[in-house]
Amino acid sequence: MIDPVRYPHLASIEAPTDLRRIPDDQLTAVADELRAYLIESVASSGGHFGAGLGVVELTVALHHVFNTPDDRLVWDVGHQCYPHKILTGRRDRITTIKKKDGLAPFPRREESEYDTFGVGHSSTSISAALGMAIAAQRKGDKRKVVAVIGDGAITAGMAFEALNHGGDVEPDMLVVFNDNGMSISENVGAMTKMMARAMASRRLNAVRERAKRAIPKQSFAGRFFKRWEEHAKGMFVPSTLFEELGFHYTGPIDGHNIPQLLTALRTVKSLPGPQLLHVVTTKGKGYAPAEQAQIEYHAVGPFDPDAGVVKKPKPAKPTYTDIFGDWLCDMAAADERLLGITPAMREGSGLVRFSKEYPERYFDVAIAEQHAVTLAAGMACEGAKPVVAIYSTFLQRAYDQAIHDVALQNLDVTFAIDRAGVVGPDGATHSGSFDLTFLRCLPNMVIMAPADENECRMMLSTGFRHAGPAAIRYPRGTGPGTAIHHELETLPIGKADLRRRGHGLAILSFGAMLAPAAVIAAELDATLVNMRFVKPLDEAMVLELAHTHDAFITLEDNAVAGGAGSAVAECLAAHGVTLPILHLGLPDTYLEHGSREEVLSMAGLDLPGIRHAILARFPQRAAALAANAG
Amino acid sequence: MIDPVRYPHLASIEAPTDLRRIPDDQLTAVADELRAYLIESVASSGGHFGAGLGVVELTVALHHVFNTPDDRLVWDVGHQCYPHKILTGRRDRITTIKKKDGLAPFPRREESEYDTFGVGHSSTSISAALGMAIAAQRKGDKRKVVAVIGDGAITAGMAFEALNHGGDVEPDMLVVFNDNGMSISENVGAMTKMMARAMASRRLNAVRERAKRAIPKQSFAGRFFKRWEEHAKGMFVPSTLFEELGFHYTGPIDGHNIPQLLTALRTVKSLPGPQLLHVVTTKGKGYAPAEQAQIEYHAVGPFDPDAGVVKKPKPAKPTYTDIFGDWLCDMAAADERLLGITPAMREGSGLVRFSKEYPERYFDVAIAEQHAVTLAAGMACEGAKPVVAIYSTFLQRAYDQAIHDVALQNLDVTFAIDRAGVVGPDGATHSGSFDLTFLRCLPNMVIMAPADENECRMMLSTGFRHAGPAAIRYPRGTGPGTAIHHELETLPIGKADLRRRGHGLAILSFGAMLAPAAVIAAELDATLVNMRFVKPLDEAMVLELAHTHDAFITLEDNAVAGGAGSAVAECLAAHGVTLPILHLGLPDTYLEHGSREEVLSMAGLDLPGIRHAILARFPQRAAALAANAG
Repeated sequence: MIDPVRYPHLASIEAPTDLRRIPDDQLTAVADELRAYLIESVASSGGHFGAGLGVVELTVALHHVFNTPDDRLVWDVGHQCYPHKILTGRRDRITTIKKKDGLAPFPRREESEYDTFGVGHSSTSISAALGMAIAAQRKGDKRKVVAVIGDGAITAGMAFEALNHGGDVEPDMLVVFNDNGMSISENVGAMTKMMARAMASRRLNAVRERAKRAIPKQSFAGRFFKRWEEHAKGMFVPSTLFEELGFHYTGPIDGHNIPQLLTALRTVKSLPGPQLLHVVTTKGKGYAPAEQAQIEYHAVGPFDPDAGVVKKPKPAKPTYTDIFGDWLCDMAAADERLLGITPAMREGSGLVRFSKEYPERYFDVAIAEQHAVTLAAGMACEGAKPVVAIYSTFLQRAYDQAIHDVALQNLDVTFAIDRAGVVGPDGATHSGSFDLTFLRCLPNMVIMAPADENECRMMLSTGFRHAGPAAIRYPRGTGPGTAIHHELETLPIGKADLRRRGHGLAILSFGAMLAPAAVIAAELDATLVNMRFVKPLDEAMVLELAHTHDAFITLEDNAVAGGAGSAVAECLAAHGVTLPILHLGLPDTYLEHGSREEVLSMAGLDLPGIRHAILARFPQRAAALAANAG
Repeated sequence: MIDPVRYPHLASIEAPTDLRRIPDDQLTAVADELRAYLIESVASSGGHFGAGLGVVELTVALHHVFNTPDDRLVWDVGHQCYPHKILTGRRDRITTIKKKDGLAPFPRREESEYDTFGVGHSSTSISAALGMAIAAQRKGDKRKVVAVIGDGAITAGMAFEALNHGGDVEPDMLVVFNDNGMSISENVGAMTKMMARAMASRRLNAVRERAKRAIPKQSFAGRFFKRWEEHAKGMFVPSTLFEELGFHYTGPIDGHNIPQLLTALRTVKSLPGPQLLHVVTTKGKGYAPAEQAQIEYHAVGPFDPDAGVVKKPKPAKPTYTDIFGDWLCDMAAADERLLGITPAMREGSGLVRFSKEYPERYFDVAIAEQHAVTLAAGMACEGAKPVVAIYSTFLQRAYDQAIHDVALQNLDVTFAIDRAGVVGPDGATHSGSFDLTFLRCLPNMVIMAPADENECRMMLSTGFRHAGPAAIRYPRGTGPGTAIHHELETLPIGKADLRRRGHGLAILSFGAMLAPAAVIAAELDATLVNMRFVKPLDEAMVLELAHTHDAFITLEDNAVAGGAGSAVAECLAAHGVTLPILHLGLPDTYLEHGSREEVLSMAGLDLPGIRHAILARFPQRAAALAANAG
């Protein structure tokens, strides 16, 4: 429970109605408590950090000025929602965030009526808020609708589409543009340069205000100053873009100054039509280490707030992300034609080293997955060999580009797909559950799933050297810890790897599921194959095993629906072979958050779950084994 | 062969090198011949028309100024590529366009080295050209890269992402912004308003130039005029948006004036960094009926050029698009909460009547599929019941939004998916081959495929009334011609429709494949089920049939990989049932263009193809039938 001595205001706020009873002049004190409580909470439990610190004052001001939840507040991405959750009835559960059965890591409609729109992926807020505003205004509802979007998220084309449409429809709505010069990686793109000019403008404004007072208006200097001022305004204020798109622009204002925020929000609240309020904040505000190292403090594990985040010693085993990052540098050294592309996920995708060693061959395209993939297609047309590093869940954003621009044209693009399968703490929005399904239906695609680290490296080399589209999808975190061969070895395309020859049952395992499969295969004296390729499938192996076994078990960390197991069944059907088959994979439900191990267990894909499913389906097998043992 | 008397210049142009030998002052004559030849050709064979007419001069000027194919010319969408194809060695085959074994309807890399990037979907050109420019410049190639994009295509977020990235990377490249105030539907969005101001600006410029000459500079009127001029420039020229994004803006210039085009292109060609040339054209230029009715003349069948396109009498049978359009109006009358959304496909998706009868409930969001779907999600949050009308192939552009914003949140959005399955003349880029696969893996989705017109209407009502995400996917063109019940009847969710009880074989048909299936079922005395629901599957029916039949045949016009047949196999496997099964559907290859019937035949999904596949797999069946007949 919260300590009412340390947090006298915050302890009294069970819901925003309590906040709205607090007079304006005490809101800065509320914000200070909220920040301290947030630091204390995240320090104890870990979680997204910098973004929340940056919007403490904004969150207080929004819930104070707007009548939430009747007025709709839509947070983009949701990294920044911790202060919002604390003020909206979830204060005492905030340390459960991201944990199994705890609060969701992002706003979520099922969790609270204050979470008006579920998020996780970026750049959806303006579209959602516009839809809400249109629907509410059609019903005659007087409720206000507010979207809060950062300068990273606004670089996505989808946000532009929504602004373009909003400026046309002209509903009453407010977009708060939270400009902190930083998304998860460093921000890139022409818009960022424009925003940097806006920052310069704020400093210029201060100079200008002082100069105005000092220089007599009718002097030569005064007239010169006046002309310079008019010119500078056009040069430095980023209003134009938004105004061109039909939004009325207000700002930039200081997003850590409560009185400024209250004044601005009360003003724009009463204005008709689409409004954009430009708020300048600092990510990590109020916690010095987080202000200075914004990328490191984007999300953290538990830490000592006095000492700052103590960097854990590098774990003994590299993550799959590390494997990719090292491979990318090694392959870049071996092949001049390699170019690396990320849609704003340099750190998450393991591209930091590459970006430093090969800055000329490194392309961070901003949060722009669609563009990332078609850019790669264009590069491939000129003989380059682009590698698109992307999370499975974000590849969903570039599906048509993968089809229409890459696979259909059979272009030489390699997709390095991280966070495939179960992701864990980030929850359903980030789950990589569908990639095998949505990719394997595409003609020309080669699709691989590694069972261990060295295989991942070999598959990356294989996909890269293959002169056509190839995807390597690997899970979050570490693997079994196999030794890495530093050569750039390749695998024969479409060949599976028979790991164990047993009797009766054959387990066909795809990717990361091999470790539990090996245990069970030994227990049941089953045959075990590491399938390696989802496409092209090793049909010869599948048919040979079908003729020599009583039943198949397919195992994958993709949805069963249309997944790799389904490809095995299609292969059997195409060859007129009939065999009992048990498909194990992700169930037809969205997976909640928890640790990766907990979520795998929830999905029945941990060792006990897999064993249970197999024995339930083939009980005579269990009985026979028990008889043998006896 | 081309008539050298009527087309003296054009007959001499086998490739752009021939064009480049023609002096500047004869290029207007070339353009005139090219336009006349285009009108003659399309009048005889049909095809995309207005867009090509609009870029006749631009195409001539581009191939004259740039050294194609060494310089790269990337056409966006590709509707406008007929003049380009005529000038690049395909003049005599232009009437084969869209036909089986004829020219592709869009630029296509396999077809010509002048087609640098395959298209069909819009808004990819800037990304592709940027990728080419980066890759070429890294290699030290001096080649130029030019993208040509229209004012419709540029409203897509993807184009914005590419501009934003291009303005950051700053390669040498040219974007020709072809502004004709018109995409396929009427253009919408705030950018369109901005462009309209630019149009006004051109008229204002003319006024201004005359006024300048008439008014003495130092008079009061002269000083007033000077101030007004400065103000007007900022108000009316759309340069700002592009300049903000880091592109150097030139224009607007008259895109039908060859000397102006040559001067402008030669100037921007020599400038370093990202260049944007704003060219104003008229869609349908030079053929009066097409200028006046731009939407009708976007694409046409064969016509008499003197009489104009003679509107064919409405065919006896309505298309599925018509069925949808009428249903939408009827359901809108019955339920106030219905809102209709299209991403710039009012005509193609059958929303013309709805847009007129319910203008306040009609939302054309521009070419912005991502936004369209999340807008719908936002509307559903406020209790509205949005219907997103979208082509199957374009839904690929909003896949993540369908997952993350709609299905995951279980929101009440109805997807009316037109052009599902085989589309025919528009070719591989437009094929709706994958929707059943990529949608059925999503938890919460209800997915239906109608076998006839009235079932389509019932399914639309069923999906709409279902309080969650639902998709109804129907094919291009007409169905079998069933009578329409004007009530808004619904179907029980997840229930299949047993059409014929036979012996031995059971044919499980999904959607439009029912008609040939019925013929074959009768021939083979097979059981026939119209499955209706891809998700939830009628498991009770599947299991009952499995227990009473020797083998299954599944039939669908989706990819076999992960498709509806695969769902049947998964159902059997999940229930431990083993049965021979033959999956008939689209093969693992991209389907070329041709008539819908031809493409179905190529895919083996016409009556002879289906019969052949079944008899090849179950030859004893054929023998038994022959014996019975004997």
